[in-house]
Amino acid sequence: MSSQTVKPEISTTPFPASKKIYVKGKIHPVSVAMREISLSGEYKVEGKSVSSVTVYDTSGAYTDPNIEIDIKKGLEPIRKQWILERNDTEELSEVSSKFAQSQQANGTIEPELRFPNEPKPRKATTGKIVTQMHYAKKGIVTPEMEYVAIRENQRYEEWKDLCKQHAGMNWGAALRKGAITPEFVRDEIAKGRAIIPANINHPEAEPMIIGRNFLVKINANIGNSAVRSGIAEEVEKAVWACRWGADTIMDLSTGEHIHQTREWIVRNSPVPVGTVPIYQALEKVDGVAEDLTWEIYRDTLIEQAEQGVDYFTIHAGVLLRYIQLTAKRTTGIVSRGGSILAKWCLSHHQENFLYTHFDEICEILKAYDVGVSLGDGLRPGSLADANDHAQFSELRTLGELTNVAWQHDVQVMIEGPGHIPIHLIKENVEKELEECYEAPFYTLGPLTTDIAPGYDHITSAIGAANIGWYGCAMLCYVTPKEHLGLPNKEDVREGVIAYKIAAHAADLGKGHPGAQFRDNILSQARFKFNWQDQFNLSLDPEKAKDFHEKTLVKRPDEVTHFCSMCGPKFCSMKITQEVRDFANKQAIDEKSALEYGLQKKAKEFKEAGGKIYVTPEEVKK
Amino acid sequence: MSSQTVKPEISTTPFPASKKIYVKGKIHPVSVAMREISLSGEYKVEGKSVSSVTVYDTSGAYTDPNIEIDIKKGLEPIRKQWILERNDTEELSEVSSKFAQSQQANGTIEPELRFPNEPKPRKATTGKIVTQMHYAKKGIVTPEMEYVAIRENQRYEEWKDLCKQHAGMNWGAALRKGAITPEFVRDEIAKGRAIIPANINHPEAEPMIIGRNFLVKINANIGNSAVRSGIAEEVEKAVWACRWGADTIMDLSTGEHIHQTREWIVRNSPVPVGTVPIYQALEKVDGVAEDLTWEIYRDTLIEQAEQGVDYFTIHAGVLLRYIQLTAKRTTGIVSRGGSILAKWCLSHHQENFLYTHFDEICEILKAYDVGVSLGDGLRPGSLADANDHAQFSELRTLGELTNVAWQHDVQVMIEGPGHIPIHLIKENVEKELEECYEAPFYTLGPLTTDIAPGYDHITSAIGAANIGWYGCAMLCYVTPKEHLGLPNKEDVREGVIAYKIAAHAADLGKGHPGAQFRDNILSQARFKFNWQDQFNLSLDPEKAKDFHEKTLVKRPDEVTHFCSMCGPKFCSMKITQEVRDFANKQAIDEKSALEYGLQKKAKEFKEAGGKIYVTPEEVKK
Repeated sequence: MSSQTVKPEISTTPFPASKKIYVKGKIHPVSVAMREISLSGEYKVEGKSVSSVTVYDTSGAYTDPNIEIDIKKGLEPIRKQWILERNDTEELSEVSSKFAQSQQANGTIEPELRFPNEPKPRKATTGKIVTQMHYAKKGIVTPEMEYVAIRENQRYEEWKDLCKQHAGMNWGAALRKGAITPEFVRDEIAKGRAIIPANINHPEAEPMIIGRNFLVKINANIGNSAVRSGIAEEVEKAVWACRWGADTIMDLSTGEHIHQTREWIVRNSPVPVGTVPIYQALEKVDGVAEDLTWEIYRDTLIEQAEQGVDYFTIHAGVLLRYIQLTAKRTTGIVSRGGSILAKWCLSHHQENFLYTHFDEICEILKAYDVGVSLGDGLRPGSLADANDHAQFSELRTLGELTNVAWQHDVQVMIEGPGHIPIHLIKENVEKELEECYEAPFYTLGPLTTDIAPGYDHITSAIGAANIGWYGCAMLCYVTPKEHLGLPNKEDVREGVIAYKIAAHAADLGKGHPGAQFRDNILSQARFKFNWQDQFNLSLDPEKAKDFHEKTLVKRPDEVTHFCSMCGPKFCSMKITQEVRDFANKQAIDEKSALEYGLQKKAKEFKEAGGKIYVTPEEVKK
Repeated sequence: MSSQTVKPEISTTPFPASKKIYVKGKIHPVSVAMREISLSGEYKVEGKSVSSVTVYDTSGAYTDPNIEIDIKKGLEPIRKQWILERNDTEELSEVSSKFAQSQQANGTIEPELRFPNEPKPRKATTGKIVTQMHYAKKGIVTPEMEYVAIRENQRYEEWKDLCKQHAGMNWGAALRKGAITPEFVRDEIAKGRAIIPANINHPEAEPMIIGRNFLVKINANIGNSAVRSGIAEEVEKAVWACRWGADTIMDLSTGEHIHQTREWIVRNSPVPVGTVPIYQALEKVDGVAEDLTWEIYRDTLIEQAEQGVDYFTIHAGVLLRYIQLTAKRTTGIVSRGGSILAKWCLSHHQENFLYTHFDEICEILKAYDVGVSLGDGLRPGSLADANDHAQFSELRTLGELTNVAWQHDVQVMIEGPGHIPIHLIKENVEKELEECYEAPFYTLGPLTTDIAPGYDHITSAIGAANIGWYGCAMLCYVTPKEHLGLPNKEDVREGVIAYKIAAHAADLGKGHPGAQFRDNILSQARFKFNWQDQFNLSLDPEKAKDFHEKTLVKRPDEVTHFCSMCGPKFCSMKITQEVRDFANKQAIDEKSALEYGLQKKAKEFKEAGGKIYVTPEEVKK
């Protein structure tokens, strides 16, 4: 159960009955990875046979047995050519950050801690802006945009007719028409309603989009905190989180060799990587918040931007005048970044330097296409503090900063709470959309009660499903260890799956075209007692299979024709099938009776309710 | 982990830092059990010191060390005197059911399977109705009604002022005034909006109320299914579920000696016990649905009513003409009861005998005060089938039957789905309230996606929190093993806690007066790094403590002044405290400066944002 006992190998086993497929682009030479789950049983949707279900795949090359994994080489830089062809960046001869330079020169760092053949960083050529928003505003559909359009649609073209029926109520008009086109993606990015976090120095990442008119995404935090783990174990944490469904990861490491660890993670991460640069900046001043300076922070931004971090959480909205609003709170300031900056502001009696230097921050970000995730440093840490003046004051400032960032063509998302009772969740989304001009919302949970430490993946999955349904674009996961300790691998898996559930529940609620397709086939498999297909289609096939086998089945390949909840006599699905068979027989008997002139029997049957079930042929339709 | 390895002892350890208290009634000699959690730290709410938090307690006498537990004697019949004093029942000389009589006479049953000294059954004297609804309609406030009024309010009198501020938006007017009085309880029962399941033959149960103007309740299903377990293990299943918070249990056993097992469970259950009598009736006809008869079913109702079952799930709404509506469903009929009756109806070409005999059923129920939980035999078993014509047709019939039952003064609740996407949940509550005249709604989940077998306690906790918030009165739990296998003890605990979270999230959303009190004190404890109080106030103190200790603390009594998520340098709560201390110091410096005429310093301070934090005295308020 504990990660300590797990050998730090990289998880590369493909999911059962799954193969990696690559869908080609029509505009650009993109090749979009998806997972195709093949079915052993026969399924039909609207008369069409279904032999496989294609699902969104965040696991990267690790689950493709045709790709050799070597974490010392890193993943293939699939975006490199796209970036080069835009002809607006240059390779730097050396890293720009003084800290990064000193790390390179530092002979005391053990060689095996360094990623071999660190790539040279790229940067926009002078005067150029290289953000996806910049291209979008210019009307350019980038390969990244086409990639995410294909990725969001899954194999939509094939399933268009089947999926249409599932289109729901709250979804955007474009989606109801099944039109997640590259042009729609471009338009959403140009309007600031969606972002593609895609640093030019992280060409290994598979493009993904965060916005409320797309699938709800989830983020998993990883990080070693105070405890030092090996490099392979750090990489495995990222791979493991992506394996179960993390759409982005945030590296919140605070230990030794944080620079080197990050390099390994970025080079091996198939998803965008986010960080909170103030954490590392604080390390550089030995944890004394008052000693932080704009220069140290600026150097940290450049250091991380040139390593390839795709988005930064920046707590620029923690203004001096807001801090007093937290004085009577039950849980004061619970955001780490928020409290660091509050302390800095009070110590210096000055305005938050992230706020006063925000233009300069944007100048840096737009030269690498690092997205800014405007941090909610004053988010509530308890239900008692939910939706209070401090929280909403900061939100207004985040809106102001959103506009500043957009003037620089920097991609923006807005971070949100935290701890919010269920009836106050909707207000958070409404206010965020209004105050922040529909920039994508990215929330932590929210937790809907404070009384269940040890189960906060559940208290927060409830809030996350609701806020996603109302329009939140990305959900930051919470593990069972939240508030109590550091998550191990099992906790990460529990947290990621709980959040995949929340995100999917939200997608279904929003009526995403095709989102229910997987549910429907799994339900058909369940009804047919096709256990293998049921396991294979589930979010966690291993656990589903394990739970089932522990109770009932002796051999793994054994097929049970009743589920273990009820046993053979009571199984309702079995009885329903008998009812169907019986009804079919009745329908046939009725036909025979009519043919042979046995009117009496047919009359009796009709009086008792008429034709109950349809013929086998009709059933199959 | 597995129940198979757990010694089948009865769990009687009190919760940490908790003692059982008994609050006396003012009208009747009732003594309402609650759990008082004492606090080690200092807490204030609105200037008043708080040294303990009293919580709703479903665990019964098992967690009172002053009460000796002997499952062979059963629990003390606390309601016996109340029942006797109503003088409307009589003790029968022998059990009325033929099956029960034959069981008593059966010499092949091992003596140790029989509960010793089985009590003689009671029944209403001829012409009398002994239901809580009957008394309520007559204007009588019973001891049961006063009991639940006190129980719902907790020690409301003491906390009235403190709690008032937490009263929220959706709660009934009576509750906003803090008036869960015995009279309010009576009125809600008379109107059919709430029920107290309280069979006169289950005097051991502590009264509880199910209705949308009260705390949201949860039910845990227990039952041995095909696998035979020992008697003590069966009793422990019930005790265990109640320990973690089950408000009622349903005994869905289908194995051998079902009659004897039920006796043991009822005699030892501190909460109401529900059953689905058709399951046992089907056993009596060797599992052949077509062979079921009204006589066998009727005898089963009497058998179970005289044992003390508090509510029966009766699938009387599965009408012949509705069955064909399920033919094109993805998952047909998934309710066991529903499918049994569908098969019976089709086989005989007759209307459901539970529907045609519903008046006679009510005649039986009102002689013992067994509540009827009108089963949703046609509930959807997949998202694809949610809110369909079959489901809502049956619901309309359940409304018709509600009226019939109320004419007999039989207490009614309405069962609901199942599998429902998040955006279709609200419609279920609205339709139920309308079609069934506001009878309490009792739902299974609902699961908000089908793709996560192994995690269905989470997929359904999302739905359960929402439906509870919208007005569902009781939530039937789902364990992680749903659809896959039989839950073991650990699964039962996971399921119960997930549902306590959902129910509490709903109570908070509804603005139940005082519901947030526990959250607020726990959050204060969290902010003070008082780990013990944080654990003790949580829904599962054991797990919270265990998770914390595994990561950080060496000795159990060790106190950590930072939480393990961030470590000592980064802990945001620690920094916030430093910010507060700093601000306090500044405030004092300002005072000194003024006193010593150092105007310049004060002016600088004020220009930089004025007085940031209040004095320690003000903070304490």
